[in-house]
Amino acid sequence: MSRTRIHNLSVSLDGFAAGEGQALDTPMGHAGTRLHEWMFATRFGASIMGRKGGTDDAFAQQHEPGIGAEIMGAGKFGPPGWQDDAGWKGWWGSNPPFHTPTFVLTHKPRPPIEMAGGTTFHFLDASPAEALAVAREAAAGRDVRVGGGPTVARDFIAAGLVDHIHLVQVPIVLGRGVRLWDGLEALEAGYDIEAVSTPTGVTHLTFTRP
Amino acid sequence: MSRTRIHNLSVSLDGFAAGEGQALDTPMGHAGTRLHEWMFATRFGASIMGRKGGTDDAFAQQHEPGIGAEIMGAGKFGPPGWQDDAGWKGWWGSNPPFHTPTFVLTHKPRPPIEMAGGTTFHFLDASPAEALAVAREAAAGRDVRVGGGPTVARDFIAAGLVDHIHLVQVPIVLGRGVRLWDGLEALEAGYDIEAVSTPTGVTHLTFTRP
Repeated sequence: MSRTRIHNLSVSLDGFAAGEGQALDTPMGHAGTRLHEWMFATRFGASIMGRKGGTDDAFAQQHEPGIGAEIMGAGKFGPPGWQDDAGWKGWWGSNPPFHTPTFVLTHKPRPPIEMAGGTTFHFLDASPAEALAVAREAAAGRDVRVGGGPTVARDFIAAGLVDHIHLVQVPIVLGRGVRLWDGLEALEAGYDIEAVSTPTGVTHLTFTRP
Repeated sequence: MSRTRIHNLSVSLDGFAAGEGQALDTPMGHAGTRLHEWMFATRFGASIMGRKGGTDDAFAQQHEPGIGAEIMGAGKFGPPGWQDDAGWKGWWGSNPPFHTPTFVLTHKPRPPIEMAGGTTFHFLDASPAEALAVAREAAAGRDVRVGGGPTVARDFIAAGLVDHIHLVQVPIVLGRGVRLWDGLEALEAGYDIEAVSTPTGVTHLTFTRP
């Protein structure tokens, strides 16, 4: 059965999944790299600087297997205003790391863009449930990943659409930014939850529908 | 050196250390017992129903050793309005579980009350720093515990007065209640932090001043 999954969603102790003041040169706002250092250090994050295996890497690698489509928010696809740049094709160069149909939620859709390596960007002005139905069809039996940002992840979780959530709690207090948990009271009622701390100080939390 | 410590402070994933709607018959508000079930199940919590050892118990037991005085908020000492009941001596019967001088912060102080077993309740209308100075003196070289509730714990942490904090993150989303983290941005900068998850699903976080 095709599931809907979220992976590697970092959150601070006080529940912020991105900082305040996101912009082109500060995509995570005042959080900087602090929410994602655990991942950059892994083999999974090796394109940046990492090479560690271990538990953090094992969790991070789960991002890939079995995924047949990704859904992302407009804020992940580009900096504010990318909709007005007809040549913008995402942050990732000619061969983006998705390798599947990838659905970008935006109020200003444009025609699909076929990239190298199997990624085709599709642009949808749709509700979470509508977008998921389209992505599910495209995934052809494999799973759909909700790739973020945090607001999109929260919207899909709040709509009851997500079967598996992998959160990474980072031991920092951000104080401000994008709150992950708003509107998710009693989320635990619908999931089996497991927690695994690692020597880097982060705690991996998985929420899985029984 | 006498340190200031906080132990067994439970917090939800979304950062609430108590629920909404606290009253005499619902001291934790809508959270009920959910924030503290991990502790009730331990030997440390055995007066209620627990008998488990293991990691949760090992952490819970750290509440006691080396403590020479406790500071607590008015909301821990009694239900709203206890200040108007001249006979109120706390929730704990004739032999309270503190066994040290215990300082209750209240805007309506009263004379000390000496209980069995070494607990004497003192009532202070004082700032966190002032109360700590008095409690430190009474602790006679041993440590001072800030016993809560959550607002008092937060006030002492925010004032930079706490050397060791033991938090227990419980995998529930409370949605509303008393926020622990407000005003504590970048708390991690002043502490060494360790995280330990246990099979019950909670994660023990310790913050220790280097």
